[in-house]
Parts: sequence; C-alpha cells; structure tokens
Amino acid sequence: MATFGDIGLAAGVNILTALIFLIAFAILRLQPFNDRVYFPKWYLKGLRSSPTHSGAFVSKFVNLDWRAYIRFLNWVPDALKMPESELIDHAGLDSAVYLRIYLLGLKIFVPVALLAWAILVPVNWTNNTLAISQATDKLEYSDIDKLSISNIPHGSKRFWTHIVMAYAFTFWTCYTLRKEYEAVAAMRLHFLASERRRPDQFTVLVKNVPPDNDESVTESVEHFFLVNHPDHYLTHQKSFEFMLEAVRCDFEMFSLCLSYFYRVLSFEIPVWVSGSCHVLYLSGSFMVVINANKLAKLVKEKKSKENWLDYYQLKYSRNQSQRPMTKTGFLGLCGDKVDAIDYQTAEIERLSKEIAEERERVKTDPKCIMPAAFVSFKTRWGAAVCAQTQQSRNPTVWLTEWASEPRDVYWDNLAIPYVSLTIRRLIVSVAFFFLTFFFMIPITAVQSLANIEGIEKRAPFLRPITEAPFIKSFIQGVLPGIALKIFLIVLPTILMMMSKVEGFLAISTLERRSAMRYYTFNFVNVFLVSVIAGTAFEQLNTFIHQSPSDIPITIGVAIPMKATFFITYVMVDGWAGVAGEILRLKPLIFFHLKNFFLVKTEKDREAAMDPGSIGFNTGEPQIQLYFLLGLVYAVVTPVFLPFILVFFGLAYVVFRHQIINVYNQEYESAAAFWPDVHGRIIYALIFSQLVLMGLMSTKGAVQAPPLLIALMVLTFFFHRFCKGRYEPAFVKYPLQEAMMKDTLERAREPNLNLKGYLQYAYVHPVFKDDEDDEDEDFNGKSDDSVIVPTKRQSRRNTPAPSKISGASSPSLPDVVLENSSSLK
Amino acid sequence: MATFGDIGLAAGVNILTALIFLIAFAILRLQPFNDRVYFPKWYLKGLRSSPTHSGAFVSKFVNLDWRAYIRFLNWVPDALKMPESELIDHAGLDSAVYLRIYLLGLKIFVPVALLAWAILVPVNWTNNTLAISQATDKLEYSDIDKLSISNIPHGSKRFWTHIVMAYAFTFWTCYTLRKEYEAVAAMRLHFLASERRRPDQFTVLVKNVPPDNDESVTESVEHFFLVNHPDHYLTHQKSFEFMLEAVRCDFEMFSLCLSYFYRVLSFEIPVWVSGSCHVLYLSGSFMVVINANKLAKLVKEKKSKENWLDYYQLKYSRNQSQRPMTKTGFLGLCGDKVDAIDYQTAEIERLSKEIAEERERVKTDPKCIMPAAFVSFKTRWGAAVCAQTQQSRNPTVWLTEWASEPRDVYWDNLAIPYVSLTIRRLIVSVAFFFLTFFFMIPITAVQSLANIEGIEKRAPFLRPITEAPFIKSFIQGVLPGIALKIFLIVLPTILMMMSKVEGFLAISTLERRSAMRYYTFNFVNVFLVSVIAGTAFEQLNTFIHQSPSDIPITIGVAIPMKATFFITYVMVDGWAGVAGEILRLKPLIFFHLKNFFLVKTEKDREAAMDPGSIGFNTGEPQIQLYFLLGLVYAVVTPVFLPFILVFFGLAYVVFRHQIINVYNQEYESAAAFWPDVHGRIIYALIFSQLVLMGLMSTKGAVQAPPLLIALMVLTFFFHRFCKGRYEPAFVKYPLQEAMMKDTLERAREPNLNLKGYLQYAYVHPVFKDDEDDEDEDFNGKSDDSVIVPTKRQSRRNTPAPSKISGASSPSLPDVVLENSSSLK
Repeated sequence: MATFGDIGLAAGVNILTALIFLIAFAILRLQPFNDRVYFPKWYLKGLRSSPTHSGAFVSKFVNLDWRAYIRFLNWVPDALKMPESELIDHAGLDSAVYLRIYLLGLKIFVPVALLAWAILVPVNWTNNTLAISQATDKLEYSDIDKLSISNIPHGSKRFWTHIVMAYAFTFWTCYTLRKEYEAVAAMRLHFLASERRRPDQFTVLVKNVPPDNDESVTESVEHFFLVNHPDHYLTHQKSFEFMLEAVRCDFEMFSLCLSYFYRVLSFEIPVWVSGSCHVLYLSGSFMVVINANKLAKLVKEKKSKENWLDYYQLKYSRNQSQRPMTKTGFLGLCGDKVDAIDYQTAEIERLSKEIAEERERVKTDPKCIMPAAFVSFKTRWGAAVCAQTQQSRNPTVWLTEWASEPRDVYWDNLAIPYVSLTIRRLIVSVAFFFLTFFFMIPITAVQSLANIEGIEKRAPFLRPITEAPFIKSFIQGVLPGIALKIFLIVLPTILMMMSKVEGFLAISTLERRSAMRYYTFNFVNVFLVSVIAGTAFEQLNTFIHQSPSDIPITIGVAIPMKATFFITYVMVDGWAGVAGEILRLKPLIFFHLKNFFLVKTEKDREAAMDPGSIGFNTGEPQIQLYFLLGLVYAVVTPVFLPFILVFFGLAYVVFRHQIINVYNQEYESAAAFWPDVHGRIIYALIFSQLVLMGLMSTKGAVQAPPLLIALMVLTFFFHRFCKGRYEPAFVKYPLQEAMMKDTLERAREPNLNLKGYLQYAYVHPVFKDDEDDEDEDFNGKSDDSVIVPTKRQSRRNTPAPSKISGASSPSLPDVVLENSSSLK
Repeated sequence: MATFGDIGLAAGVNILTALIFLIAFAILRLQPFNDRVYFPKWYLKGLRSSPTHSGAFVSKFVNLDWRAYIRFLNWVPDALKMPESELIDHAGLDSAVYLRIYLLGLKIFVPVALLAWAILVPVNWTNNTLAISQATDKLEYSDIDKLSISNIPHGSKRFWTHIVMAYAFTFWTCYTLRKEYEAVAAMRLHFLASERRRPDQFTVLVKNVPPDNDESVTESVEHFFLVNHPDHYLTHQKSFEFMLEAVRCDFEMFSLCLSYFYRVLSFEIPVWVSGSCHVLYLSGSFMVVINANKLAKLVKEKKSKENWLDYYQLKYSRNQSQRPMTKTGFLGLCGDKVDAIDYQTAEIERLSKEIAEERERVKTDPKCIMPAAFVSFKTRWGAAVCAQTQQSRNPTVWLTEWASEPRDVYWDNLAIPYVSLTIRRLIVSVAFFFLTFFFMIPITAVQSLANIEGIEKRAPFLRPITEAPFIKSFIQGVLPGIALKIFLIVLPTILMMMSKVEGFLAISTLERRSAMRYYTFNFVNVFLVSVIAGTAFEQLNTFIHQSPSDIPITIGVAIPMKATFFITYVMVDGWAGVAGEILRLKPLIFFHLKNFFLVKTEKDREAAMDPGSIGFNTGEPQIQLYFLLGLVYAVVTPVFLPFILVFFGLAYVVFRHQIINVYNQEYESAAAFWPDVHGRIIYALIFSQLVLMGLMSTKGAVQAPPLLIALMVLTFFFHRFCKGRYEPAFVKYPLQEAMMKDTLERAREPNLNLKGYLQYAYVHPVFKDDEDDEDEDFNGKSDDSVIVPTKRQSRRNTPAPSKISGASSPSLPDVVLENSSSLK
C-alpha cells in the first residue's frame, strides 16, 4: 500500500514530465519552421502562409525574438479566450461539443470532490479500524486507506453517510447530465437551423433498390419517387443552356461531358458507382477491389504527374534559359532524356483519357451500378418526410435514411443487401466477443514463438547473434512486450475495420461504433483486469461460475485496494499523456522528414502537414474511463478525485488549443455522438452503485443493498427519460424546423436554382477531378474563411486586444496572404 | 414416477371430462332457448333473430326434432369449413390470425413429434442406464423415463443425436416462424390495403399539445398543422348548408347544434373532452372521476328511461284500451300514479337537457379540455407522413401517432404529460416485479387471518358457529385456498389496470401489454415454481446466489423429472379446459338468469347475450405456455409431444367454432399482436436450448455447451433478422400503400366529401347519443352485414352445399329477418 509519500513522488515525476513536454512545446511552437506542425488549421483555412519570405535567412527557421520566449505560456489563455460560438464557426460543432465532455467532467467532479472532502474524508478519517487491525492482525495500511471507506468499522452507523453521499452524487451527476444533454441538443438544433444551405438537408440516401428486369436502377428510382412523392421529388431539368454552363473547361472536358450527359439522361438521380456491386457481395469482393483500385490508381498517378508538372513549370519560370529535362525510365534515372514539361503534359493527357475510359466502363457495366441512390427533394420538408418514413411494403427494400454530409459518406458500404447485413452483424458481434475475451491467446502464442529458444530452434544459423548478451536480453525483455504493444496500437484500426464490415454508411457512425467497442474493450481489459488480477478470459470464467450477487462483491472489495494503482494510472496516462499530445512529437518528426525528402511544391507541403483529427473513436473511450474511475472512487476513496480533476482541467485546455490550432475534422456530424457519451456515463454511474453495494454488503451495512438497488432503478429510469426526451434531437429531423427553413429560404431567394446547387454534391471521390474546388463549394470552407477573419478584425479593434490568431504565432509580424511565390 | 398406466388413467379421466363437456354442449346448443348463448355473433350481425314465432309453445324452448341429435357433432366440420378469407370478413383479421397461433402449434409440433418419435425415442429406449441404476442404487424409474434423455448413460456418444435434434427442431421452428410471420404480415398488409375507407386511415392522434397563453388548444393545433402540413391538413369548411344537413333532428337537436357550432367554430379539429385534464394529472384525478361520472350517469339514466318508454309503448300498442300507469316514487312502487308514457317522455326530455348542459359545461370549462387532438388529413399519405415523423424540436410535445380505430381508443389516457409517463412506467415496473415475486406474502397474510384461531380471536361471539364441525372444516380446508383462487381470478384485471396506469392509448395495446405481463407471471409462478419447488421469491433468492452457469443446470436437471406433472397439467388445463370453454357454462347461466329477471325489451335481451371476446390478454399467454412446454420437452422427453398436439388440435377446432358463432371482438387491430407472439416463441426456444445445455452438461456431454451456445446465438440473430424484416409491417404504414389507396380513391370517387365522412368519427363515448347508429357507420358493421350474406347466398347455390350458418343452427328451419315483433 502506497503512502502519501509514494503518491507524492509519483505525482512529482509525472508533473515534471508533463512540464517538460509543455516547455518543449512552448519553445518549439515559436520556431517558424515548426509553424505548419503547430498551426496547420490556420494554413488549411488559408489564414496563414509560410512565414519565410522576409528577414534574415536564419529567422526563417529559428525565432530570435527573446520577448516571445518570456510569454511562452501565453497559449493557455489564448486557447481559453475564443468564445464557444466562435469556436463552432471555426472548428465545427463536433469539436466544440467534444470539448464539453471535458467540461462536463469538471462540472460533475468539482462539486463532488468538494462535498466528498468536506464530509466523507472527515467521516472516514476519524475512525481507527485500520489502526486496530494493524495492532491485532499486523495488517499494513497506508494513509490513503485511512481516508477511504476501509477505515469505517464493520456495521457502523457511519455507512449512512456513504449512502446519502451516493444519492447526492448520483442526483448531482444526473442533474448535470440532464442540463448538458439539454444544452447540447439545443446547440445541435440551433446549429442545424442556422446552418447555411447544405446538400444533405435536401438529400435522402435510398438503399436496397429492388432489382427490376425491365428498368435500370436509375429509372426505377425515378419512377418510384415520382409516384410516391409527387409534390416533393426534384424532377429533372431539360434545359441545355444549363448543361453548357455547368460544363467545365479543363482538360477533362470529354470525360465530364460524358458524365454530365449520363446524369442528364439518368434524370438527375445520381446513381453512384463505387466499383462494388450487389451481386458480388455474397460471393466475395474481388472485382470490387480491382475496379476501385484501378480507377483510384489512375487518379493517383495523374495527381503525381500534375505535381511534377507544377514543379517543372516553376523551375522553368525561375530559369527561363533552360527547359527542364527528365528521363522517361524508372524514377527518372534512366531511359531517354526528354523535355520534362512536354513529357508530363503528354502523360497527364494520356492518363486523363484512360481515367475517362475507365469511368465510362464502370458506369456502363451494369454489374458495377449499385442498387442505391442519393435522391434530392425540392424542400427540406420533403426530404425530412422521406427519410423518416417507410416507403414500401417490404421493409428491406427502398430503405431511406438521411444522407450524411458528402464528406461523411462511406462509399464502400452503400450496396449491402439486407440479409447480408444481419449476417455481418452476427459475425462481427461474435468476433468482437472473442477479441475482447480471448485476445491474449494469439499474443501469448506469438510471444512463445518470439522467445530465444523458439528462434534458435527455427533458425539455428542465428544462434551466434542471439547468444550475444545484449541481443539476448533485448529479445527476452522487450520482444514479448512488443507483441502486446503492437496489438494495442493496431486495436483501434481493427475495431474500425469491424465497424466497416458491419456495414455502416457514414464515417461518423463508424467512429461512434468503434468508440463503443473500444470502451468495452478498455472496461474489460484495462479496468476489470486491473481491479481483479487475471486475464479477461479468466475473469469471464470466474464470473460465469460465480453467483450474480457475488460479482459486485468481488469487484467491490478489490476497488479500494486498487486506488493507488489507478492514481498512478491517471497521472501517467492522463497528465503526462495529455501533455505529450500537445507536443505532437510524431507529426513534428514526420513533417520535417517529409519536408526534407519529399516536398517539391506548395501542394506537397500542404499534404505533409497532417493535422489529424480529434479521433473520437479512441479519445472518447479514454475520457469515459476517467468518468468511470471518478464515479467508482467518489464514495469509496474520495482522495482519488483531485487527480481526476487535474486531468479534466489540463485536457480541456490542451484539447481546446489543439482544436483551435491543429485538428482538421474530416466531417461534421453536428454532435451526433452525444447520446453515446451520455449513455456511457450513465452506465458508469450504475456500475459504481453496483460495486458500492457489493463493497458495503461485506462491511455489514445491511441498509445499503436495498437503498442502492432503488438508486440503480432510479438512475436507469432517468436514463429512459433522457433517452425519450433528448435523443430524438439527434436521430430525427423535426418537420417544424424543416418547414421553417424552407419558408425562410423561399422568401429570401425565390429564384434559387436548387437543381444546380445539388448537381455535384454527392459525387464519389474517384469521380471528383478538381476535388479541392468542389470540397470548398460544399463543406463551407470558403465561407468560413470569410467569416472568421472578419470577426478577428473586429476583435482587434476592441479596447481589450485579444490577438487570438496573432498571439498564437507571436513572432510572425507580417503574415502576408501570398501563396506560391514563397517556394524555395 | 408415473408409469404408463397412471398417465393412461389420467388421460382417460380427462378425455371423459372433455367428452362430457362436448356432449353437453352438443345437446344444449340445439335447444332454441339457448340459441342466443351459443350463436350471439349471428344475432349481433343481424343475420338471426329469436326463433320463437312459430310452432308449438314447447318448441320455443326445447328442440324436439330427434334428427338434430344424431348429427350432434356436426359443429366440428362446420367450424372448419369456413375458408380463411371468409372468416376474416366475418370475424375480423384479429380473430383469424389468433386461430393461426394454434395452427402454428400444429405446424411446428407435428413434424417435431414425428421426428422425435422416429429417432429420439428409439435412441433413448435402447439403453439400460435406468435399469442398471435401479439394480445398483434401488432408484425407482418409470416407463416414461425410459423414453426420455435420462436413460442415456453418462458421457455417451448418443448425445450427439440430441444435439443434432436440437438443431433440427430449432431450424424447423425458425423456418415455420418465418413463414408464418411472412404470411401474417402479408395478410395484415392485404387487409389494410383492401379495407374500405376508415377514419383512422386519415387521422393522427396528436398528444401533448403545448399550452399557449394566447391561444386555445384548438387554435394552436390548427395553426400548427396549417403551417407544417399545408398541403395535407384538412382545412375547415365554412358552408352552412353542410351544417344544416349534418344536424340530426332528434330530440337532442339543441345539444347537437351547440356541439356542431362548437366544432365549426373550432375549425373542424375535434378536440376531445374526456373530463380529465392536463393539470390535474399530477395532483390526483378527483375532478376527472367526478366529471366523467356525472355525465356518464346521466346518459345511463336516460337510456334506462328510454328502455321503459319502449316497454310502455309496446304494452300500449298491444292493449290500446288502457294507458299504462306508473308511480313516480322509488322503483315505481310508491308515489303518485301518472300516465307512464307521458311521464317517461317528460323525464327523458329533462335528462336530455341536463346532459346537454353538462356537456356544454365540460366543453367550456378550460380545465377539462385536454391537450390532445385527433387531426385528420386530406389524404392517407398526409396522415402516414404526420404519424411517422417528429413534428417539433421538443420531442415531448406535438407527439403524433396513428389514431387507433375509434372503437379501440382508450380515452382516459389521452392527456398524460411526458414526465408523468416516465414516472408511471417506473412505478408499474416496480409494482409488477413485486407482484410477480412477492404476491405470496399478502396472500399468506390473508390466509393467516382467515384461519380458525384468527377469527375466534377477533370475533369471539362467532365461536359457537366456527366450532361447528362442518363450518370449521370448511374454514380450515377451503378458505386459505380461496384467497389464492380469488387472487388468480382477479390477476388479469390487476394486470390490465397496470397497463392502464402505464398510459397506453389503445385497448389493443393495453391487452398486448397485459398479455406480456401475464406470460411473465405464468412463466415464473407456474412453470418455474412447478419445475423447482418453492415460491417465486425463494427461487429469485436462489438464483441471485447461484452462479449464472448453475441456473440452467438447476432447471435442466429438474425438467425430465417433471414431465409427468406437466402431462397431467396439459390434460387438465388444456384438454378439459378447452372443452369447458365451448360449453360457456357461465354465460349460459347468466343469460337465463338475466332473461328471467331483467329482460323487458329486445334491447335488453341483446344486452344480456354477453358474447365475450377472445380475451387476448389471458388466452395468448396460455397458448405460449404450451409452446414453452413443447419446445422444452421436445428433446428431453419426446413422449410429451402428442399431448401438446391434442391440445393444439382441439383448441383450434373449439376456438374456430367460438369465433364463428360466439365472440364479438371489441376492436380490430389488424393482427398487431403478431410480433409479440413471435417474440415469445423465440424466447421459449432460446430458453429450451438453455435448459438443454444445463441438463446435458451434467450428463457428461462435453460437446453440448459450445454447440448449444452457438445455436442460441443463431436463434437470437434469426430473431433480429425477423424483427427487421417483418416487424415494420406491424408498426409502420408504408407511403407506397397510402399513395396507392389515395390514387385509387381519387379516381373512383372524385367528389368524395371526406370532411363529412370524418365529421363524427372520433367522438368520446359519452358524447355519442345514438351510439348504435354511429358505431355502424364507422366500424363497418353495416357493410359487413351486407357482404356476408351475399357470399352465403352464392355458396348455397354452388353444387356442394355448405350451409355454414344454417348448419350451425340446425333446428331453426325458418329464420326470418324480423326484429321487434318477437317480444313476448
């Protein structure tokens, strides 16, 4: 049992680590050559460009302004300054609400900690049970235990305090949760309501279009919706002026024309082709991969050639005297020497043609046309109605659901038939069960292969090497651990793959599902395995053979004994880990490596930035583990709570900074994940009550079990209530809202060409040629970049100067919005 | 352990009982004076009237035609003859599908029984485990055990047969279930599609209309739907010609005018008044009861007076010489003597006025107007859309759902606010838990009060009586049993009350919910309590303290030992009970008692018939218990299956007869209960696999647990699949269907006055004056009575004469469709 001294030492070490990380960050971020690592978000928004065009050569890389270093902790107030509404504009609602999870942690645990320290700690402290048992049974105990429930004598009246506190904590948590759910639901609805026009507001994804012998998918979709939604279905437009206007005059005109004709002929219902087909899904997906791969490969190759062309043209523009030359062979190292610009141009043309042909092939190949479509409606009301109702008698065909944002669509899963979906769910559920409880088996197998004897047996010629003392100790000491470590690193990827196999249609859903699984995995393999020794499988075995009333006792009794372990865990994983997050060591190294070896053009540099995203599928389960720990220990070992508080506070600041300056979200789901967050906290709450019941029933508190069971029932019904009251805001789209927006829009823009607007909204990525342009058209980037600087401007003129973006890049006095000329 | 002889004896006794019931029925039903007891359905449909107008006096009461008695079992082929489509026309889809549950039992268990007897019985029989253990351990065993799994030696390879059979039975059951679900879903959709125009197709129930300070509920509903469903909301009609046409010229013109004005003024949105109000629900419901009671009392009083008036007018018409006189005082026995007809007419007028005043009072009292409305739409499409979508931001207001049939609405629950609903659910769940597991406690308490000593202590003056030997033995022997019996009789009522408290809005939902609870109660207190001795509470206690892996073992081991008990149970409850059902002893006695003492007019006689209904809330759980028993014993003791088969066969015939001739369904839910039926059979299937696993793991069949767990997982996912594939047909209304019907209707009746049609559809019962007329208008009775005889007619002319209705009433040669003249 650890004493206060031990804990203090551990805390010191971890605080020191965290501080080192923070100082390193504070210094590194001031260096101009790291600017793209620590402020990529601003680059992506076009509000900041490489700061290397003026001043001395060295100042391009190192910040020599000593004053900047004095204010090295300025990022903290900067991160906190941006108001939430501005944050939503800047980074999206998902990110803003994600931050609220940390804030929720503070809201729940600050009063809980205060109350626990004011009441529970004195109640626990003023006993001498542990002292007596030390005297009689020679039991060791630590100061921390003296503050915990362990110090209360058997059957004491003082347990009433703990029960009352359990009630108080539960009520407070529920109250906060409810407030928060309400707030987030309101934010979501406000966000959706105040949003600009977006294609997904008008669009419904129709899956499982039934095959028809007489009609193509396209025709069948059109007929169905013309018949069943006659007033709302956006009919096709015949004007050819419009067509001419829409055709873009780039070197892919031919392909575009074809694809445009295709769309016009197919009555404006974009039937998307992802190279995967209905028939093939049951017999394997070879053709799928080949198809998509070929097209994707061609597109990628073309991009690379375009990049080279840019490079050579730039080179030529600098030095007009000499046309750049290249060799046609492998990596430009062998073969005939030709004019580089001409060569690349010719290559690009060839590839464009090939891509166009491949596209046509895919489009005309009936096997490749998926029985799914994005159907657009004239009004939001029409789309809301279609998305929320059943279309056909047979509930497995003509399935409709809201189309996710174009960025959020997961194209590969659009064509899974209904029966296959059920089978996939079954397989994935079984696979996840085995993954959770039996993952140690293959790892143990690998470890047994990777030991010295195994290697020597299989590869006797390696014996001289493996017998070397250093290598031997390395293999014996590190290798077994590495197998486990590698597994844990790839675990999120495995879980994500599982979600993909399960057949969800949006990236946001995939991430939510993976988060759920990751949390379950962590709960079993981190929490339970730490509390009760033994692997998950051994525990499962124990639990099956234990009575249901013994399980909470087994866990409950072990809980107070593991307090110090989890305190250390929080400090290492929470404090130092979060401080490490802000340093972004991996992206920093990778950026500089890429910059040094690969970057040729400005586009490459953009690509090398890798801002990353929040990573909901791994980040949220981690926070949830802290909620679980906090709730479990709130009554049992209140001394635990301050450590959790430090985590939530630090993480809030760090992630707020990262969200403002670094992360670039791939999609915007408008906080669709909140019901999951809420549900898991409720789960943690009920679990904490259960183990408290188990613990107290062994301590002779006879009044505890019935009272705590009642509390569990109440908590459960609170959950039911919240689910009914707030969850619909996250899964449905009220008609009132839709009608309101429709009416407003009709009043404001009576002549809106909605058809033109929705024309290219849902295009499969491989069909997007000028991807960047379209992206900006549809996800609102171009608008944001107008809104945000305006606001900044106005803030700069206010009496209290808050240079949020400026202060975040303190040593860059004249950031000029200039683009390509800065290439070295 | 029972031998074949014991079982044979029990079977003999029960077959005899059943036969006596059937013969008694066969004789009683031929007597004309029982005709209304055994054929009320035909009377209600107006296809049959009292057969007492011709022939000798005695033949009015007793059937003297000896030939009729020869064909006394003719009702069986008669019951089976009517084809299903005709049955649906005749008795509704609910009844037809209810019969399919019995048929499903036959479909599942006939092949299972054949297979089990062909394979399992020989496999079990050709062992001598029991003989050996009898020789060594002196264990008793019966012949039945020799046919059961108990006769297989420990760890034998023969258990593979049982596992394979478990798989085969599961697959067969699932296959049949799927087929049946498909068929019932198709029947439901066909029924809904081919149905005539019905008000509920156009109507949506809107609950929780938010209170508004500036607008009444009526106005607020109108504004909301005008704004949010502008194209579909049925707007109000201003023509006063229409109004005049609609007003009926009965002696309640005044009241009707007022109520009509009220409706016109309130823009055609029928806002219903049930005397219960939003505000009061939280603080109790005193006013509710008072209000509804007063109005209902007045209506009832008026009805009684009208009945007397009929009686006197009839009397006068027979004997014109003398005006009938009556006394104004108590029961017409004292007070002034007045002209009876004039007096009753005056009384009726006075009451009509009072009723009208009371109605106006209720309507104008803002406290009595509930925040709920039935909103009608122009098209089915509009109603389907509104019912399936969320209307407002706040998911607890403007809740919409399909309006049930007017007959099916449970008016009292229309105004429960959302929070109150959650609390009600909580309270009812907790109450049901205690009812199930602790119901023995109050009964034991009552029993202890009702014993001799208790009575003598409390009422010493009764001692002389209670000391009498007969009374003493009566009290000691019967009274404790009576307490339990009374509880079991009132149990369905208690469960129904629970469902009502829970706040469901349709009688069909109430019944479904009660059925679910009744099944749970039976499962715990009949099945489990019989398998493992001890009360439910003791078992709960055992299970809590047992490991999850031991519970199936405990049950599984006890299962084969209880086979004979359940065989007896099936014979008593199933065979004799079903045969008793057809005799209708209670309605028979009550009808004759009422007929003798109370009946004055033809209306009274109608009321005395009491045809009853299927009683889904008690009947279906009983069938489910047989499914459970059949599935559990299919592998363990195959000898059990024939007994179940006899039950299903007998019950099918009996209930088909009853449905054709007796029961009068209160509502038509279009087989909405099927998902529950399906779900409970799946539950029984998984439970049977679980106990089989428990049993086999004790018999040393190590291969069984993993294989049976896999089977359980497969069964569960089969359920998931069916839920997704077929359940939507029972809870949603596809837009394609709605659009189809709308289009057809528009083509057929372009000038339909839908407004007039929907005018009086949803009227609270106390506001219906000429209830019978309106009922017929809206629930299609009047139409059915046209359709059915036509079909009969055509059948009579076909070469194979099938006189279904005629044969069911064999001794009534000239049933004349004449009404009131037959009054004695």
